[in-house]
Amino acid sequence: MEIREIRLEELDTERFITEKIEEISSIVGDGLAINALSGGVDSSAVTMLGHKALGDRFKTYFIDNDLMREGEPEHIVSLFKDLGVTVELVDAKKTFFDALRGQTDPEEKREAITRSFYRDVFGELVRRTGAKYLLQGTNYTDIEETVAGIKRQHNILEQLGIDPEAMYGYKVLEPLIQLRKSAIREVARALDIPEEICNRPPFPGPALAARVIGEVTPERVRIVRNATKIVEEELSHTGAFQYLAILHEDRVTGVREGKRDYGLQIEVRCWESKDARIGSPTRLPYDVLDRLAERITTEVTGVVSVTYSITKKPPCTIEAV
Amino acid sequence: MEIREIRLEELDTERFITEKIEEISSIVGDGLAINALSGGVDSSAVTMLGHKALGDRFKTYFIDNDLMREGEPEHIVSLFKDLGVTVELVDAKKTFFDALRGQTDPEEKREAITRSFYRDVFGELVRRTGAKYLLQGTNYTDIEETVAGIKRQHNILEQLGIDPEAMYGYKVLEPLIQLRKSAIREVARALDIPEEICNRPPFPGPALAARVIGEVTPERVRIVRNATKIVEEELSHTGAFQYLAILHEDRVTGVREGKRDYGLQIEVRCWESKDARIGSPTRLPYDVLDRLAERITTEVTGVVSVTYSITKKPPCTIEAV
Repeated sequence: MEIREIRLEELDTERFITEKIEEISSIVGDGLAINALSGGVDSSAVTMLGHKALGDRFKTYFIDNDLMREGEPEHIVSLFKDLGVTVELVDAKKTFFDALRGQTDPEEKREAITRSFYRDVFGELVRRTGAKYLLQGTNYTDIEETVAGIKRQHNILEQLGIDPEAMYGYKVLEPLIQLRKSAIREVARALDIPEEICNRPPFPGPALAARVIGEVTPERVRIVRNATKIVEEELSHTGAFQYLAILHEDRVTGVREGKRDYGLQIEVRCWESKDARIGSPTRLPYDVLDRLAERITTEVTGVVSVTYSITKKPPCTIEAV
Repeated sequence: MEIREIRLEELDTERFITEKIEEISSIVGDGLAINALSGGVDSSAVTMLGHKALGDRFKTYFIDNDLMREGEPEHIVSLFKDLGVTVELVDAKKTFFDALRGQTDPEEKREAITRSFYRDVFGELVRRTGAKYLLQGTNYTDIEETVAGIKRQHNILEQLGIDPEAMYGYKVLEPLIQLRKSAIREVARALDIPEEICNRPPFPGPALAARVIGEVTPERVRIVRNATKIVEEELSHTGAFQYLAILHEDRVTGVREGKRDYGLQIEVRCWESKDARIGSPTRLPYDVLDRLAERITTEVTGVVSVTYSITKKPPCTIEAV
């Protein structure tokens, strides 16, 4: 099926919301639907649409796979509580790390996360609740990149020839699939989602697993999470489209207290972009770069080298994995 | 033996040169000595000192290990011909790549290069010529870092407990061992070595092998050599202390002509430093960084990502391996 993009300039936000609420309501009927909220603007908008369409027949889960930002699960649950939406925390740490063990190839890592998400975690939730529908925040850039073969997005199923009903026992609804990020932000604002979420930099589906080159272990996620926290603290004022820290697998020679320290490298990326389709590195002042390097090498144990990505997309992509 | 540094401000260049010429002459007597010229300022200064001290009883070799800059062997030979010094090219490509095959640990790579240099290549030259002495350009920073255990410099033997006479059949003389880079540059100028050499950024002993993370193969050296050429062309006007390109072993996701290209990453470093002991990244204008990334991803096949090192030394070191 051809999917037609609705561009930001042609988007009638109120009409879009009304139509999507009616659509969800008519498809799900008097059944149950569920969704996973990650705290990003896409899944937040879907959460509010589903809630408005289905009320109590819609259940929202936060899947705690230990791949999120520090303190994220509790923060997002509390934020949605204020919006009148109950979010249930699901502890899925073991499921994800078991699936990721020994995986180093980016596509295999994404595949392991897709399987853990849709088959293991959602399969179980669907059985438990009897839900027939999963709502998710797939957007237009996701499907474009998947169809082009650039990256397998974790949330694309049908485009990859996977029938979720046959494989996992539920249908997937994607109310945002015609929109890019900038249009989704407008929809989210109209749904009264706080600016903190509308404005926050995109966080990838596979979360911090997309920011660890090589094997994703709890220890390596902890390292990239600490670096991510510093990058977000130092760069949130920039208004950049996205900023992130990547943990490399390569080790480089460093020096600590006069001795060799064969250590870790963190790559920082900060992007200027409208919709993630093309992007260029933000021209951060060197004082900011200095502080990033200083803080990361001081506060994140084992890191001796910090680099800044200076490549445009294309040929680079926003995330590294 | 304690080695006393002669600081730039206390250096009497003419007196230093006269003393070193006398010293070399009196130690070598009527024997033969040899040296390896890499084209860097250290080995260039040693070449001129040896030549002045010993005349025809001093033989200079350029060891072509295929780890040097593009066109370097021929260029350096021709440059010294103009100074009246005959330099013999030694093809040692196979020796080095055989020794480096399968080596990924930085210390093992350095050890493989040390062995190839001192045992295999020089051992053979010494046997062929009957030389009893090898002159080399070890400087004060080299021994300081080796003694501190930061890096094994390829040219440090006695500090590592290796007796070259017992192991390889020759003694090593190190006339520059009391000087750091800035002082050596002054000595080189006084020896009429062209500014091109006095000013050129330091090139490490293990050459491009120090700029390849992971296994050093002819193909990977070719990639980092091409990137090095671009970095030197774009940054030679900066007057920075050193600028270099590093080929990572990690691969990152990129995109080419709308398709995924799981490609290579090059890290660029450009250093402000007096003597390599401490350093900070040059604050290159973003137009320069843009052009570097654009040229490297366009001209060096397979590269989809370019980063710029933003870490100070310490905790980073100048080179990566």
